[in-house]
Amino acid sequence: MNQSELDNLRHSSAHLLAAAVMEIWPNTKRTIGPAIENGFYYDFQFSQPISEKDFSRIDQKMRELLKKWEGFERKEVTEKEAKELFKDNPYKLELIEEISQKGEALTLYTSGNYIDLCRGGHVENPKEMLRHFKLLSIAGAYWRGNEKNTMLTRIYGTSFPTKEELEKHLWMLEEAKKRDHKKIGKELELFLISDDIGAGLPIFTPKGTTLRTLVSDYLTHKKQENGYQFVWTPHIAKSQIYHTSGHWGKYDAMFSPMKLDDEEYVLKPMNCPHHFQVYLYRPRSYKDLPYRIAENGTVYRYEKSGEVSGLLRVRALTIDDTHTFVRISQTAEELEKVLTMIKEILKTFGFDNYKARISISDPANPSKYLGSREAWEKAEKTLQEKAEQLFGNVIVGVGEAAFYGPKIDVMVQDSLGREWQLSTVQLDYNQPQNFHMVYTNEEGKEEYPAILHIAMIGSLERLLGILIEHYAGAFPVWLSPIQVAILPISDKHREHAQKVLKIFQEAGIRAELNDDKKTLGAKIRHSTLQKVPYMVIIGDKEIEGAGSKVSVRTREGKDLGQMGTNDFVVKLKEHIENFS
Amino acid sequence: MNQSELDNLRHSSAHLLAAAVMEIWPNTKRTIGPAIENGFYYDFQFSQPISEKDFSRIDQKMRELLKKWEGFERKEVTEKEAKELFKDNPYKLELIEEISQKGEALTLYTSGNYIDLCRGGHVENPKEMLRHFKLLSIAGAYWRGNEKNTMLTRIYGTSFPTKEELEKHLWMLEEAKKRDHKKIGKELELFLISDDIGAGLPIFTPKGTTLRTLVSDYLTHKKQENGYQFVWTPHIAKSQIYHTSGHWGKYDAMFSPMKLDDEEYVLKPMNCPHHFQVYLYRPRSYKDLPYRIAENGTVYRYEKSGEVSGLLRVRALTIDDTHTFVRISQTAEELEKVLTMIKEILKTFGFDNYKARISISDPANPSKYLGSREAWEKAEKTLQEKAEQLFGNVIVGVGEAAFYGPKIDVMVQDSLGREWQLSTVQLDYNQPQNFHMVYTNEEGKEEYPAILHIAMIGSLERLLGILIEHYAGAFPVWLSPIQVAILPISDKHREHAQKVLKIFQEAGIRAELNDDKKTLGAKIRHSTLQKVPYMVIIGDKEIEGAGSKVSVRTREGKDLGQMGTNDFVVKLKEHIENFS
Repeated sequence: MNQSELDNLRHSSAHLLAAAVMEIWPNTKRTIGPAIENGFYYDFQFSQPISEKDFSRIDQKMRELLKKWEGFERKEVTEKEAKELFKDNPYKLELIEEISQKGEALTLYTSGNYIDLCRGGHVENPKEMLRHFKLLSIAGAYWRGNEKNTMLTRIYGTSFPTKEELEKHLWMLEEAKKRDHKKIGKELELFLISDDIGAGLPIFTPKGTTLRTLVSDYLTHKKQENGYQFVWTPHIAKSQIYHTSGHWGKYDAMFSPMKLDDEEYVLKPMNCPHHFQVYLYRPRSYKDLPYRIAENGTVYRYEKSGEVSGLLRVRALTIDDTHTFVRISQTAEELEKVLTMIKEILKTFGFDNYKARISISDPANPSKYLGSREAWEKAEKTLQEKAEQLFGNVIVGVGEAAFYGPKIDVMVQDSLGREWQLSTVQLDYNQPQNFHMVYTNEEGKEEYPAILHIAMIGSLERLLGILIEHYAGAFPVWLSPIQVAILPISDKHREHAQKVLKIFQEAGIRAELNDDKKTLGAKIRHSTLQKVPYMVIIGDKEIEGAGSKVSVRTREGKDLGQMGTNDFVVKLKEHIENFS
Repeated sequence: MNQSELDNLRHSSAHLLAAAVMEIWPNTKRTIGPAIENGFYYDFQFSQPISEKDFSRIDQKMRELLKKWEGFERKEVTEKEAKELFKDNPYKLELIEEISQKGEALTLYTSGNYIDLCRGGHVENPKEMLRHFKLLSIAGAYWRGNEKNTMLTRIYGTSFPTKEELEKHLWMLEEAKKRDHKKIGKELELFLISDDIGAGLPIFTPKGTTLRTLVSDYLTHKKQENGYQFVWTPHIAKSQIYHTSGHWGKYDAMFSPMKLDDEEYVLKPMNCPHHFQVYLYRPRSYKDLPYRIAENGTVYRYEKSGEVSGLLRVRALTIDDTHTFVRISQTAEELEKVLTMIKEILKTFGFDNYKARISISDPANPSKYLGSREAWEKAEKTLQEKAEQLFGNVIVGVGEAAFYGPKIDVMVQDSLGREWQLSTVQLDYNQPQNFHMVYTNEEGKEEYPAILHIAMIGSLERLLGILIEHYAGAFPVWLSPIQVAILPISDKHREHAQKVLKIFQEAGIRAELNDDKKTLGAKIRHSTLQKVPYMVIIGDKEIEGAGSKVSVRTREGKDLGQMGTNDFVVKLKEHIENFS
C-alpha cells in the first residue's frame, strides 16, 4: 500500500471514529478528521467531558457500525443544502462558508448512516479494509490551531491494512514509551533537568557525563586521526559579529543580548564566527588548505518553553562542529572524506540504516546562487555520487539549496525503525566573503576558500537522547558508564572482590563493587535494572586455589561460567576496541 | 634588610627623584611619592611633557644631588608655615588641609637643598644608601586615583641596598618582559584575543588547545583516581538561584541578566549552584559521603575592560572546580587528602616553592560564625597542621575567615621568584542550609553536610598564562604541543622522515614533519624558536642500513647523537610518564 492509499485508509478511519462518537453522544459538534503520519485524528467539541476510559465503548461502536459500511457515497450539494445540514455546527458552517467563497465544490460522503462534509479520499470497501484500527490518546487542540479559538478535544488513532502491521506499530509505540530517554535517563541516573536552573538546560550527572565524555572523546580522536585541529572558544561574543555574518535579525533562536561596558554581547547560537577568528589569526596560503577547525562547542538557542524536551530539544546544545576551509578545487575530495567519516561514525553508534537528503541548486535559475556554476555542479555531483555510494537511499531536493551552497543531511533509522536526522554538511561560498577570509594562491594572489560546515552527529545532547532510546539504555560495553558489576556473595568474598576491582581499575575498566548486605539475587536484579553489561560473581569457587577467577553473567541473564579475571579483562578490552 | 627598612629606602629614593625633577623643571608641581611593592613612584604635574628619554638626565641629576645628602632633617611646622611654603601647589595644600583637620603634626623633611612635606620613614645615611636605584617607567595617574581629578605623570623607579640585588631585580624584570605570556602566546600561536569577539574572551588556537587539554585531562585523571565524579553543567541559570545562594546583589562580577520567556537568566559566575542540583538529585545517606562532584566548568565574570589582560585576567574562566560534601566529622581527613593532592599537582606543573595562607575565625568572637565551635577548631587545626606539613611557610589570618567557614590559599613561586595565588579550599557550613542539602545519618535523621569548595589550580586560563611565563614557553616534553620536529636534510630523506613520523604518531607522540624546501639550519632555527623540545634530523647516515634511526638534538642545542627511532620513543615516553 502506498502512502496515498494509506492516507485514504486512515482518513476513512477518522470518519468511522466520528460516526461512533455521534452515535454515542449526539450533541457533539464534529470539526475535522485528517490522516497524519502514522495515523489519524478527529477534533470534537463535546458537551460532556470524555477520557481514554471511553475508548472501549467508542471502539465497540466503531466495529458495530463498520459492519454496515459498504462504501463512501459522494454527493455534491449547494451551499444552502450544506448549511441546512450542519445548521447547529458553527465549525462546519465556517468551513462551508470558506469552501464556497473559494468557488470549490461542496461534497458530502455517506457511509452507513453517517454523513460528513469532506473533500474525499477514502477506501473502497470500508467494511473489509478498516478493521485494523486502534484508538490511542486524547489531547486538547485549538480550533484551527489558533490559541484564540475554542479548545476542542482531539482523539488520536491509527489504522493499518493488516492485523500484523497494526500490531507491529503498537509494539513499536509501546517499546518507544519504555525506551523514552527521559524515563531511562532517570532510572540510570544519566541526566537531570532542574527547574531552578531552567528548562532545556540539562545537567549531566556522573554516569551521564561518563557517557557524554566517551562519545565526545571518540569523535575527537576520530577527527584528530583525520587531521582535524581542535580549538576552544568562549560561549559569548559581541552581537556585532552576527551582523557581519548576516544572522542578526534573521536567525530567531538567538538569546536576548547583554550590555557590557558600552557594548552588546550575546550567547553564541553557532560556533562559526568564533572559528573564523582562528582562520583569520594569520595570513593563510594555499599550502594550509584544507584547514580543519573542530570543536565540540556548546551553543545556546532559544526554543519555546513548551517545545523543549529532555535531551532532544534543548536550549544548551553541544555541536560536534567543524569548519573546513578548502580551495574550490578540493571540495569534491574533501567531501568524500567527510562522508566516509560520517558513515564510520554512525556505524560505531550502531546505526546501519541511512538515508541521505541533498539540497541542490535550481539549474533553471543559476543567477540566484553565489559562486561559479562549475563549482556548484561539481560539488553537487560529488554530493550525489558519494551519498548514493555510501548511504544508498538518496533524496534530491532540487532548488532547495540556500543561495550560499548545497548541503547534505543524513538520517538514520534506530532500532525501532524511527528516523532521526543527525549529520549535516553545508557548503558555504558566502561567509569567506563576509569575513574576508582569503588565502594566497601559487601566484601570490588572494582567493576565497569555500567552507564546509560539518556536524557529524549534530549535537551531543540529541545524539545521547537518541542513543538512550536506540539501545533502551543497554549500551554496548564500550559506551556503558559501568562496564562490570562485582558481586561478592558474602562477607568472606569481599577481600577477593576488592582485588578483582583493582585488576579492573588498573586495566582501565569501569567497574563497580556492590558489597551491600543484600542477597546475590537482589544484587543481580539491581545490576540488571541498571543495564550493566556484565556481572562477575565472587563466591567460594572463585576464592579457591591460585590465580584470580570470576564467574561471569550477562545483563541478558546468560551464565558465561568461571574464567580467569585477566582472561575476562581481555574479553572486555576486545569489546572496547571494537566499539561493541 | 626587613620590609620596613626596604620601604624607608625606597621612600627616600622617591624624595631624591622629586628633588632632581624640581631642579631640572622648577615649575613642576609635586604631589606624593610612596614606596610600593618592589620600588617607588612619585606623581608630578609637569608644565611640559616628559618621557622616558628624560630618564638619563634625571638619573644624572639624582646622583649629583645625592653626593650632598647627609641625612633627612625633620622639622615640625604650623599649618600657616606649611601653606606658605607650598602656596603655589594645590596638591600639597589639599594634603596640608587634611592633615591639619585630623589634628596630626605637619612635618617637613630636608635633605640637601630639598624640602618635602612628609610623614617620615627614611634612611639615615642617604649618600651611601640610596646609590642603587633605577628609574623604570612613566605612566599617567589621576590625583588620588580618582578619574574626576587631574591626570598627573607618575615616574616609577626601584632601589635596593646593594648593587647585586638591584641587578638581580632588573634582570628579573627584563626576563619577565621576555616571558610575557601575551608575547610568547603569539610567537608560539597558543591563543588569540579578537576584538570582534570581545575583551577578556581568549580563543585557544590548535596548539593552545592541545596545551589546555593536556592540563585539563591531567587534572581530570588525577581527580578520578581519587574518587572524584565528573559532571557537565550548562553556562547559564535562572537569576533566582543566586538569590537562594545569597550572591545576588553582593557579588559584583555578575554579567547583566537576559530575559527568556517571563524569566531572568544569567551567565553563571560560579559552578556551585549547578553542582548542588546533582547532590539534590536524589536523597543522600551518610554512606554516600564524602561525595565529590568535579567539573572544569567555564564561568563568566565581569572585569572592567581596562583590567582584563591576556590569560591572567579574563571574563571567561574555566575553574577546576570541586564541591565535596562531607560529614563534619570527615572534614579533617578529607582536607588532608585534598591538600596532598594539591601539592602533587603543583609539583607536576614544576612549582616546588609554596606558601600557604589560612583564614581562620576570631576565637574572641565565636558567635559570629556558623556551625559549632568544635567543628571550626578541628577544621582550623587540621588546616594549619597540614598546611605546615605540606607547604612549610604558613601565614595565619586570624579573624579573616568568612562567617561560613575557614579557608586556605596556596601561593607558588615561579621560576623568576614571582608569587602567584593558585589553589583555594573554602570550607562552607552555609550553602547546605540555603539549598537544604541534607543526608540521613545512621539513625535515619537529617543532618547538614559541610561543603569543601576546591579549586586546585584556580582557573585553566590563569594557570596556562602562568605556565607560559614560568617555562618561558619551553614546556617540558609532556606539556609541549609539539614534542618532536622531524627535519629531513633533503628530498631524498623525505620518505624515511615520513616513516619516522608514522612511528611517532602510532606511539602517541605529537610530532611534526618539516619538509619545507629550506636549509637544515633554517629548519633547526624555526623549531628552536617554536621551543620544540626535540628535533630529529634525517640525513644520509640515518637512511643507511636496517632499522629506523634518527639523530636527536635538543632545543637547547645539545646533540644527543644517533639512536634507534624506537629507543627514542622509549625516552619520550619516560618524559611523558614522569611529567618531565
